[in-house]
Amino acid sequence: MFQRERHPGATGVTERERRRPGKLTKRGLRVKVYQREREFRTDGGLSVRDITDEVKEAVYESGISDGVACVYSPHTTCCVRVNEFEQGFLEDFATLLRRLVPNDHYYAHDDWDRRIENICPEDMEMGNGHAHCMAMLLGTAGESIPVCDGDLSLGTWQRVLFIELDRQRERRWIVQVVGT
Amino acid sequence: MFQRERHPGATGVTERERRRPGKLTKRGLRVKVYQREREFRTDGGLSVRDITDEVKEAVYESGISDGVACVYSPHTTCCVRVNEFEQGFLEDFATLLRRLVPNDHYYAHDDWDRRIENICPEDMEMGNGHAHCMAMLLGTAGESIPVCDGDLSLGTWQRVLFIELDRQRERRWIVQVVGT
Amino acid sequence: MFQRERHPGATGVTERERRRPGKLTKRGLRVKVYQREREFRTDGGLSVRDITDEVKEAVYESGISDGVACVYSPHTTCCVRVNEFEQGFLEDFATLLRRLVPNDHYYAHDDWDRRIENICPEDMEMGNGHAHCMAMLLGTAGESIPVCDGDLSLGTWQRVLFIELDRQRERRWIVQVVGT
Repeated sequence: MFQRERHPGATGVTERERRRPGKLTKRGLRVKVYQREREFRTDGGLSVRDITDEVKEAVYESGISDGVACVYSPHTTCCVRVNEFEQGFLEDFATLLRRLVPNDHYYAHDDWDRRIENICPEDMEMGNGHAHCMAMLLGTAGESIPVCDGDLSLGTWQRVLFIELDRQRERRWIVQVVGT
Repeated sequence: MFQRERHPGATGVTERERRRPGKLTKRGLRVKVYQREREFRTDGGLSVRDITDEVKEAVYESGISDGVACVYSPHTTCCVRVNEFEQGFLEDFATLLRRLVPNDHYYAHDDWDRRIENICPEDMEMGNGHAHCMAMLLGTAGESIPVCDGDLSLGTWQRVLFIELDRQRERRWIVQVVGT
Repeated sequence: MFQRERHPGATGVTERERRRPGKLTKRGLRVKVYQREREFRTDGGLSVRDITDEVKEAVYESGISDGVACVYSPHTTCCVRVNEFEQGFLEDFATLLRRLVPNDHYYAHDDWDRRIENICPEDMEMGNGHAHCMAMLLGTAGESIPVCDGDLSLGTWQRVLFIELDRQRERRWIVQVVGT
């Protein structure tokens, strides 16, 4: 089960804990907003692309030293997520996702005898109800990442990943950096 | 499995890829922060409300042309998510969620012989342990969406959805726009 | 199934709905960006720590009255999530997560006969493929929370939680506040 951690302040338990004072990195400066969009064609199936270097480049070009970068997928069957870009893990996660959201179930979204809304002719050839469900299960369309000293505050193994849950398609992602 | 895409820069593979230069949409301007809150009563069960037009209206009223909109649910058994508002898909996702997080399992959260914290009398009539688990599985409480040229940067089928995982209740959502 | 709610504007259905006008809380002011980082050692297993008070303290110290707080985990097997800090629920969610992502399955990420990338000696003793899959399923690395009148816009039962999905480890989280 999830153990709830005892808080040192509440219990007096000694803990190897180092506290750094926060810093008001920028005060009284003018705001900058920078946007960049990138297009590419995905491989489809379940595929993932490491876009970290491109996002970092955008942050660098923005000239923004401190703020937040919102990396966003404007698609309903893709998402941007931060995790490790390691082949074994990506296989493991694809296996998990296919087990939780099987492709061969019935999806009302793909039932063209019933569906009357948002008709997209290309989807009639190859249903994507499972890809919508996967995207919702995965969470939000994008990730917000702190920007500090002109770079993304990523941890050692963190990479920014563009995840395609649908077939091979033309896609885009947006990075919006707000800060100073 | 998740295929890792080959990066053209790394492999020299030609790819239909168009790169647009980023733009510093706003530099040296003063920051604006705009907040709007909206209350309503949900239908309960698993219900979803399309709040896109209201969020867009808030962005328009903010006078902010470029920045980020954080659309947020201040509840532990609801969330705001971006996806398609199509009846078939919403049914598919409800089926999936009920399969992964069944209502009729034992939930310690609803065990009033054991529970000693955060007592909410209304929840004693109708447990919502499953709704908490669904909310955590779905991810964050809100979504952050880039704002560009005074509008949300939504894709063709993307809508902003307020998702109720609990019974019929009074709820609210907040949109906070930061930018210039 | 997910019921789609009828929108009063579209159907004329009366609804207990109160609309408050939004407010441009801050206009024409200078932006502030504040960052704080905190380190601690988790208990491991599945453990969760309530960091709400520390995040609130950071917001207070930032002097920022209106904006957005991005609370972020720079790790691939942890995340920051907003939900209730109630023992029963946390047990329920751990049970769910262990059922959906069993620890005793095969994970290619932990197969040291195959793995050739991102070698981390400590992980060879105790695999964490399941923890990566849990983190991806849970969603983003962090949460973005609106800041209003110098405080987080949390609902009654909402707490900011740091979730450890891996073994006992030294971890950190970052809060980045952007606003004015």
